[in-house]
Amino acid sequence: MTSTTSELSLPPLSPTPRSTLRRRADRARTDRAELYAVLDAGMVCHLGVVADGAPVVLPTAYGRGRGEHSDTLYLHGSTGAASLRAAAAGAAVCVTVTHVDGVVYARSLFHHSLNYRSAVVHGVARLVTDPEEKLAGLRAIVDNVAPGSWEHARHPTRKELAATAVLALPLAEASVKVRTGPPRDDEQDVAAGDRWAGVLPIRTVVDAPLPCPLLPPGTPVPAHVATRR
Amino acid sequence: MTSTTSELSLPPLSPTPRSTLRRRADRARTDRAELYAVLDAGMVCHLGVVADGAPVVLPTAYGRGRGEHSDTLYLHGSTGAASLRAAAAGAAVCVTVTHVDGVVYARSLFHHSLNYRSAVVHGVARLVTDPEEKLAGLRAIVDNVAPGSWEHARHPTRKELAATAVLALPLAEASVKVRTGPPRDDEQDVAAGDRWAGVLPIRTVVDAPLPCPLLPPGTPVPAHVATRR
Repeated sequence: MTSTTSELSLPPLSPTPRSTLRRRADRARTDRAELYAVLDAGMVCHLGVVADGAPVVLPTAYGRGRGEHSDTLYLHGSTGAASLRAAAAGAAVCVTVTHVDGVVYARSLFHHSLNYRSAVVHGVARLVTDPEEKLAGLRAIVDNVAPGSWEHARHPTRKELAATAVLALPLAEASVKVRTGPPRDDEQDVAAGDRWAGVLPIRTVVDAPLPCPLLPPGTPVPAHVATRR
Repeated sequence: MTSTTSELSLPPLSPTPRSTLRRRADRARTDRAELYAVLDAGMVCHLGVVADGAPVVLPTAYGRGRGEHSDTLYLHGSTGAASLRAAAAGAAVCVTVTHVDGVVYARSLFHHSLNYRSAVVHGVARLVTDPEEKLAGLRAIVDNVAPGSWEHARHPTRKELAATAVLALPLAEASVKVRTGPPRDDEQDVAAGDRWAGVLPIRTVVDAPLPCPLLPPGTPVPAHVATRR
């Protein structure tokens, strides 16, 4: 993976015990560019918070900031959502993004695995109150989930903005784990040569857009939707 | 969605405050068959535990039991994995499975959304020690992630079994949330008729299998891999 100079000048990942991989350390990636790549390839993270002593994990849309905010992950949600309120109040959070790239069929069940890329970010989120950063955070999320919509769709009203909480999570303490390639089988299972092994690649595709039934007939699909892959 | 008689005879979902959806209750599904459908459509869950007071969310393979264990979710991992050890020691866990089915482009940014199916299971996991259930749990995971491999691949040795922890999580306290269909825009934005709106469907596909480079040349791809969709 290539890294830009500016990314390489940022501190490396895994500076703390909990973000240092103990299991399968061979799958750890410590380049910040790899963290960005895993995050930027996804739309939904799993946000973990602690509520009444128990973990709660909820799927949430997110986006990484741009420019001076490129090492900030933005999340948003209704101001009424309990998990978001807990996170906004300064509770520790964990944000995990996972892409499954393939099923690894080994000769033994024990070595069956998945090819995947995952990023785990630990930290304390900050409720974004500055109006300019709040808009920038929303834009980061929109640009990630629906690129082109920021330019196309109606922008939020003051009331809509007030109903939306935006959280900022620094990308300071994170780990990235990647598994690629064929199964790693035991030598004697390979030598036996009597069982198939390999990888079934998995990927996500988009199908043809489904226009809203309330659109005027013949409304063309705009390029930012039509060309999305 | 159709439900079998046996599923309908099970208790309904959402019996507790934390598994009762407060946000977007219109998206809640309370049929146990819908929980099973969301779980059975996935391979990787996000397992949340609390470690030193902070949440930790890790991607983990899983499978739902069959027969008498059909309301049990099995997870597995190395006996050395800290999160699994915490869960096995009786800590509260949260297991979340999410499928993203589409990007919902609304006329306003505020009503942008995702079509998705998600299941959130709360509970306390049990370390499976009974050898028969441990095998059944592993089989549930293999049958879910790599159907057909249980019949094809070498079964675990005693040593491999000892290195693998299997956890059982009862599917007792869970919530299911589903969003489908076109954007729900404000009336005035629909009336304006000047912006595109609709859904870009997203789905997961498998590509042609990649045989392990160490296979004897000409080894045929077995049907359980070749026919997987």
